[in-house]
Amino acid sequence: MTDLLLLPGDGIGPEVIAEVKKVAAKLCPDLTLDEKPFGGCSFDAHGTPLTDDALAAAKAAKAVLMGAVGGPQWAGAPRDKRPEAGLLALRAGMGVFANLRPALCFQPLADASTLKREVVEGLDIMIVRELTGGIYFGSPRFIEEIPGGKRAVDTQVYTTGEIERVSRIAFELARGRRNKVTSCEKSNVMDSGLLWREVVTELHKRDYADVQLEHMLADNAAMQLVKNPRQFDVILTDNLFGDILSDEASQLTGGLGLLPSAALGVAGTPGLYEPIHGSAPDIAGKGVANPLAAILSFEMALRWSLGRAELADRLFAAVVAALDGGARTPDIGGRLTTAQMGDAVVAQL
Amino acid sequence: MTDLLLLPGDGIGPEVIAEVKKVAAKLCPDLTLDEKPFGGCSFDAHGTPLTDDALAAAKAAKAVLMGAVGGPQWAGAPRDKRPEAGLLALRAGMGVFANLRPALCFQPLADASTLKREVVEGLDIMIVRELTGGIYFGSPRFIEEIPGGKRAVDTQVYTTGEIERVSRIAFELARGRRNKVTSCEKSNVMDSGLLWREVVTELHKRDYADVQLEHMLADNAAMQLVKNPRQFDVILTDNLFGDILSDEASQLTGGLGLLPSAALGVAGTPGLYEPIHGSAPDIAGKGVANPLAAILSFEMALRWSLGRAELADRLFAAVVAALDGGARTPDIGGRLTTAQMGDAVVAQL
Ligand SMILES: CC(C)[C@H](C(=O)O)[C@@H](O)C(=O)O
Ligand SMILES: CC(C)[C@H](C(=O)O)[C@@H](O)C(=O)O
Repeated sequence: MTDLLLLPGDGIGPEVIAEVKKVAAKLCPDLTLDEKPFGGCSFDAHGTPLTDDALAAAKAAKAVLMGAVGGPQWAGAPRDKRPEAGLLALRAGMGVFANLRPALCFQPLADASTLKREVVEGLDIMIVRELTGGIYFGSPRFIEEIPGGKRAVDTQVYTTGEIERVSRIAFELARGRRNKVTSCEKSNVMDSGLLWREVVTELHKRDYADVQLEHMLADNAAMQLVKNPRQFDVILTDNLFGDILSDEASQLTGGLGLLPSAALGVAGTPGLYEPIHGSAPDIAGKGVANPLAAILSFEMALRWSLGRAELADRLFAAVVAALDGGARTPDIGGRLTTAQMGDAVVAQL
Repeated sequence: MTDLLLLPGDGIGPEVIAEVKKVAAKLCPDLTLDEKPFGGCSFDAHGTPLTDDALAAAKAAKAVLMGAVGGPQWAGAPRDKRPEAGLLALRAGMGVFANLRPALCFQPLADASTLKREVVEGLDIMIVRELTGGIYFGSPRFIEEIPGGKRAVDTQVYTTGEIERVSRIAFELARGRRNKVTSCEKSNVMDSGLLWREVVTELHKRDYADVQLEHMLADNAAMQLVKNPRQFDVILTDNLFGDILSDEASQLTGGLGLLPSAALGVAGTPGLYEPIHGSAPDIAGKGVANPLAAILSFEMALRWSLGRAELADRLFAAVVAALDGGARTPDIGGRLTTAQMGDAVVAQL
């Protein structure tokens, strides 16, 4: 059985995943790795962004680590063959319904943010985004001809069960952190928001009354993230709001190139790990991408899916030590190449 | 015929609208004003947040100026009787499909933002949000019982016509500004996003090829607003993304208490003007709310619906002069009361 399936993908994906391989070779040479094409490169080679073979390998591994997918060259591909469609199919196929996206301000980079240092120093938010439901997957969805034009429809659907299982993860995580969950929706305008609030409230009362729970409208959350981001511990939200709020939050830290993510399903099934950043076609192939987000995604995989929390701790410490030592790729104001940044981490292991 | 219908509403609404009355009495004593209950106070008095009488008066006026609606005391009201439902009914009833939300950084307040001065100084974004369609109004929408729980559904619907008319307003506005429109959607996951991009692209080619058009995914826009907000001139987006992005953008300026908004329908129908801020129950009745957002909403009404652009210019200059002179309510670091701030503006007229 493969421990870790690598899906390097497109753009800077293969470059940053190469650094993960270096780190893994040093940190845990016994880890078994496999690799499959995924995204645009898979479409080019096999006519689909996610082959049955790659999905089967993902489901059979203990954890899956993705680089990045997409790029302008596939913008013209049929909708269901685009790299993004492959990513949605992978999430759904693996059943990874809870997306954990930390927004963490690394001390040596506190000045890299566009926000004032005193507002973001020490920032440590964990966003828990529902990942396999909502408007991303609801039906009906279509575009039809009507007199004088077209009409497009998308459907947001959520069930009690879907909301409950992702909320549990948020509450559990909060207990190991600062014990606070902020649940975000638009219950003032959406029926799914009403149900979301109701289910979270009841679950809290039933099983997590020791955790502080706060409800906040998603528009207000977008505002509060800028106004006073350190008020948040765990943010719990749906697929679409989670997409937007987590991107906003990641930018607060000034270090998008450092932020990992994890997507988890039911216990015992593999997790899907990926950097928050995209495929960055503008710098792909230049060897300047920051590999830390991918390396820290590997760190999350060690912790959450591979049962190696001690190695994860060592790796996290090595990344912090490398940053403390001044290691910087161009995105955070330095001159190191992707490979040199990987080396800087390996040197600390 | 009434020139301006006032809907003071709830919370701090009546307090800030009182200052608008002062300003109007000084600036244009010939303006005819009328006033109706709206929101929670209307629910208390008449059992509905928007009476037929208030809606008829709104449609018959040249412009409508709202204070704010809502508050915790109506959270338990039936869904369709909540203050927010009244606001949605007013928007739909008046047919005000284009919501203009400026995010403007006033020079004397550049340090009030949580973002660094050099990132937000001179910021001047105009968000054009579609206001009468999308997931706010689409059907079906319901919550139903299913085995073991419930299931909630909301529907996002957009037609070519709805997208086109709001896009026209964005392009027209851009021509009078820095000539750039950034259209935001999630065309990578939503069919309505695909149609949105297609309609905007075609309209641009047909009628506005002289305006610079850029498409940006809504999650990326949430990120770019924090990273480099001055890259934006006009942001064009749908109802739900507009709700979130405009709240985020307003917070960048550090001066939420200063930001107005306008909602416009087809030419010749009244516009709806309102401060971006809410009813702020925590400070209601204390006389400390900042009336400038309401006063600047009146300024937009003078300009866009009442045909008095010169008076609008004078009023805007008076607000800037008051700020330059150091007038500050507590939200922007001062000690003036609501009434004193209103007086400070009147003194400059
Ligand atoms: C690529 C896209 C489909 C995806 C999403 O919207 O979920 C991305 O933005 C993300 O957040 O992982
Ligand atoms: C009060 C609420 C219904 C409203 C909305 O979501 O549109 C508000 O947030 C706004 O942006 O004006």
